[in-house]
Amino acid sequence: MTHAHIITVDWGTSHLRAYLCEVNSNHQLTLVDRLLGKGVTKVREHFEFELSQTIAPWTEQYGHLPVLMAGQIGSSIGWKETTYLPCPISPQKVASSCLHFCYQHHQVAIVPGLHCHHDNNSQDVMRSEEVQVLGWLASNPKKQRGKHLICLPGTHTKWVLVKNGIIQLFKTAMTGELYDLLSHHSVLIQSPTVEHNEQAFILGAKYTLESALGNFTHGLFSVRSKQLFNELTPEEAPSYLSGLLIGTDVRAALNAQEWDASDLKEIHIIGNNKLSTLFADVIAMQDIATRLHDVEVLSIQGFSSVYQEIANQFN
Amino acid sequence: MTHAHIITVDWGTSHLRAYLCEVNSNHQLTLVDRLLGKGVTKVREHFEFELSQTIAPWTEQYGHLPVLMAGQIGSSIGWKETTYLPCPISPQKVASSCLHFCYQHHQVAIVPGLHCHHDNNSQDVMRSEEVQVLGWLASNPKKQRGKHLICLPGTHTKWVLVKNGIIQLFKTAMTGELYDLLSHHSVLIQSPTVEHNEQAFILGAKYTLESALGNFTHGLFSVRSKQLFNELTPEEAPSYLSGLLIGTDVRAALNAQEWDASDLKEIHIIGNNKLSTLFADVIAMQDIATRLHDVEVLSIQGFSSVYQEIANQFN
Repeated sequence: MTHAHIITVDWGTSHLRAYLCEVNSNHQLTLVDRLLGKGVTKVREHFEFELSQTIAPWTEQYGHLPVLMAGQIGSSIGWKETTYLPCPISPQKVASSCLHFCYQHHQVAIVPGLHCHHDNNSQDVMRSEEVQVLGWLASNPKKQRGKHLICLPGTHTKWVLVKNGIIQLFKTAMTGELYDLLSHHSVLIQSPTVEHNEQAFILGAKYTLESALGNFTHGLFSVRSKQLFNELTPEEAPSYLSGLLIGTDVRAALNAQEWDASDLKEIHIIGNNKLSTLFADVIAMQDIATRLHDVEVLSIQGFSSVYQEIANQFN
Repeated sequence: MTHAHIITVDWGTSHLRAYLCEVNSNHQLTLVDRLLGKGVTKVREHFEFELSQTIAPWTEQYGHLPVLMAGQIGSSIGWKETTYLPCPISPQKVASSCLHFCYQHHQVAIVPGLHCHHDNNSQDVMRSEEVQVLGWLASNPKKQRGKHLICLPGTHTKWVLVKNGIIQLFKTAMTGELYDLLSHHSVLIQSPTVEHNEQAFILGAKYTLESALGNFTHGLFSVRSKQLFNELTPEEAPSYLSGLLIGTDVRAALNAQEWDASDLKEIHIIGNNKLSTLFADVIAMQDIATRLHDVEVLSIQGFSSVYQEIANQFN
């Protein structure tokens, strides 16, 4: 049996994002509707209940549709734990490794997260961003060839290296989380929620982009000292801090030993428009072009690419 | 009139540390007793009341003794604001720039904080650590000559360069504050208060000491990924994080453009024994010797050095 609709779910720690998708004859998905539910850490293990509640309007209309999920829902604190798949990895291998199970007449599949080893013997992991990368790969046949660096900004920035259609490795930077912590709990910021100030942002980014070895640790205090000497107002300070953090993140990515960024003509950014633009501004300061992609569009395309591989398993 | 006793006060944001000192014929101070009061941010501007309350037992016994203070009490959120003095600066200039005033028959002097410009057009400031550096300079005539690097670990690490008896410049790293924020508010740490684990600490320090350009931002996430792959227990994670942070702080200090650390035979550390030992362990990994100094002893010596210069102003 072929389904006319399926549901795809990006279920992270803070939010459940459910998408009703129409399936065409090639098993390609098109977004029809979206609903929002609670994240993994907020539902206290009542995953079945939360999902049923969230997608109830669609179940009422279409019956028990297949559900394709990704994100922290497949982690040790989620519904069913999926083992992280080792990189390098192909999109087909990711799709064929989905965990299948049934609940309340829904056929469910969870896309596993990825992990990779770095040269310095440390490991890295991601869950849900891999779907966006699959979407990016599926979105244009040209991307199947050559070397590409993708930046996915968020609470944790992920930098993903793709070579000839294979996800090679990736790195995580806790940029968003550090910004949040330092904005709300440190001596640096008095008014965390103010309008973005581009001039202060660029000043901060310039500081870390141009700084000497390891200077971030020593540079962070400039958020305070610049305020003490009236070189920065309390209202400008959050934008300056944001610039410092994104500057150090971008600088580390462009200098990462794990890949040679010097021959890259452009960097692809997948994220919400506001944050993506900030990263694009900083990358532009290093004379590298960027191309911005919408996270929701690529997420659906990624699920679509997975579904095309495993559609025959939903009967 | 010469006083047989004076009171010295290190008054920071969290604590008021008062010391009763005996004055010898050369105006040198010897610690007799200590009392603890509330910090600047906790007394809501009732500075007179807090100080009187704290030192009441001494006032009762000795009358209205002179009070020599340093720290945030001289900042814009303190009792009387003292202007930051520009570096390079001599101990004599610091002493002669004290702010004098009277309250309730006590003669009071506040030692001003210091500031310095860095090459990258940012500024740095400190309050109260300068007294410890003056104490260090006064503690041994040999330190009056040559180039020395002093590390003062704490909520904010201060690295101070001293040349031929002059405080040249200094840098601040928010190492202690970052540790506190990341321990209590991030995804990295589950059990913030556990025993120190030296092996995990060294592992963390090795990571950042040996890391490539800017790798700290990307390395921080290893606190989590190592726990996911059982390479680190939740109980070891805080020590590993501490190692990462102190490693990046030390690495930045040893590579700072503002001074050439390559010709330094040893680094002096002024702090509490526990934290100083952690910094010494990490600096030792870079084959540099350290000498540890007790913060309270040097603080009293610093106040003593200031008092010797200005004793004639207390009559």
